[in-house]
Amino acid sequence: MKVIKTKTEMRRIVEQAKAAGKMVGVVPTMGYFHDGHLELMRRARAECDVVVVTLFVNPTQFAPGEDLEAYPRDMERDTEMAESIGVDYVFAPSVDEMYPGGSEGSVTLVQVEGLSSVMCGCSRPTHFRGVATVVSKLFNIVPAQKAYFGQKDAQQLAVIRRMAADLDFPVDITGAPTVREPDGLAMSSRNMYLAPVEREQAVFLFKALQAARGLIESGERNSRSIEESMEKVFSGAPLVDVEYIAICDSIYLRPLEILSGEVLIAVAARVGRARLIDNMQFKIE
Amino acid sequence: MKVIKTKTEMRRIVEQAKAAGKMVGVVPTMGYFHDGHLELMRRARAECDVVVVTLFVNPTQFAPGEDLEAYPRDMERDTEMAESIGVDYVFAPSVDEMYPGGSEGSVTLVQVEGLSSVMCGCSRPTHFRGVATVVSKLFNIVPAQKAYFGQKDAQQLAVIRRMAADLDFPVDITGAPTVREPDGLAMSSRNMYLAPVEREQAVFLFKALQAARGLIESGERNSRSIEESMEKVFSGAPLVDVEYIAICDSIYLRPLEILSGEVLIAVAARVGRARLIDNMQFKIE
Repeated sequence: MKVIKTKTEMRRIVEQAKAAGKMVGVVPTMGYFHDGHLELMRRARAECDVVVVTLFVNPTQFAPGEDLEAYPRDMERDTEMAESIGVDYVFAPSVDEMYPGGSEGSVTLVQVEGLSSVMCGCSRPTHFRGVATVVSKLFNIVPAQKAYFGQKDAQQLAVIRRMAADLDFPVDITGAPTVREPDGLAMSSRNMYLAPVEREQAVFLFKALQAARGLIESGERNSRSIEESMEKVFSGAPLVDVEYIAICDSIYLRPLEILSGEVLIAVAARVGRARLIDNMQFKIE
Repeated sequence: MKVIKTKTEMRRIVEQAKAAGKMVGVVPTMGYFHDGHLELMRRARAECDVVVVTLFVNPTQFAPGEDLEAYPRDMERDTEMAESIGVDYVFAPSVDEMYPGGSEGSVTLVQVEGLSSVMCGCSRPTHFRGVATVVSKLFNIVPAQKAYFGQKDAQQLAVIRRMAADLDFPVDITGAPTVREPDGLAMSSRNMYLAPVEREQAVFLFKALQAARGLIESGERNSRSIEESMEKVFSGAPLVDVEYIAICDSIYLRPLEILSGEVLIAVAARVGRARLIDNMQFKIE
């Protein structure tokens, strides 16, 4: 496995692989890998000839006061983990390499209207603009035929799918299932912010979603009823400060009063220093 | 020469040409060709193995009330002219092909901050967002190594150069000199809106720029003095309603009080039904 630091070398490698008829897969990440990341890499490894993992803590998707500085980083551990999966290249550029000239030099923003301003976009209004912009850049630097993202970040996945379709990026996007801890907590690099007592209650995001699943399986189709049941679950977890419960379609993220079609139920909550998200998706006939 | 209507076929042709080691050049246009367009095509023909001209009157760069419906179109004449230059492919998609699902389905916008809101951006605040978005799409549909744009649209060229650099599009952008009528009027598809009496005075955009050039050649470096001389020229053309005179750097379009470096002097004016633009660029040591 090789670690690549420059855009030019990275693009040359991918272009050469494609010219040789290879299928290239890319897994964009911010590093500090957990099993969720590794699952994406395994999937890419199984489906592609060449696997590139990008590792870049993108400053433009953090607002002032968010956890950009605190965001966990461990390059050595990450490269070892990627190598153990059989990844071919880790693209780990510096901030200067990605944004030469700094914020003044880079003034182009990719904005996915509508999808970016709901749910997590309410408390993080510039977040998905930063995500869509850096992923556009990564698609141009690593012009892979396939890209892999986690379904845990359901809104991010919806934004990236929309962006790639609207801007005609020739890449096939796969969303891979959320990987969970034994008790059900969705794996996240931010779980390391949790104190033990907070960690215990963090599982209530999953529990609330499980309650929703139970209701849907028993035939409930009314969003308000499902939301109320989820709120009731959260009342048992005083350290979990719920930011939103969203029940919407999974493509355009438009709120649903009555469940039908491709349904996304998503939650966000603050637990101590961590802001956690989780979701489940349902296909309602 | 072949006319291509679908994104899929267009991309396949370009990918195959590149895989065969060919240099592909693209000339994005809105059609209704004049010598300015043909000059771009000749340049591409001289420098590339495969030349693609895109022909699409992009609705998203027109605001309500602008001349989208009136914009001149003549597909048959355009394809003949392109063929006479030796163009290989004309990509002429429908609006539905470019924006499937219409405006609701396509919600991703590419915005180049700063550069898009000055000069023509004052009276056309959404114009350059439409341009940057459709050119991003075209770069993905026609992933050519070289792209050709006219320097007549100096602000558009600056916006596209910035966008391509910021989003890491792997394309080399050439700006080609403005082609002029014998009296100096910059060629434009919109010149056909001019009545004979307006056409006579339209040349004053060029005359004002010539006056600026004369002053610069004689050593003048003060923007205000140059602007005043240009205004004096325009006072001889009552049918020319000047929208702006801009004296700025040609990369970031920031106003200059004292001329130095790469200088752009640009004008925009309404003449009857037409909104005309013109510019000259100077390298000041």
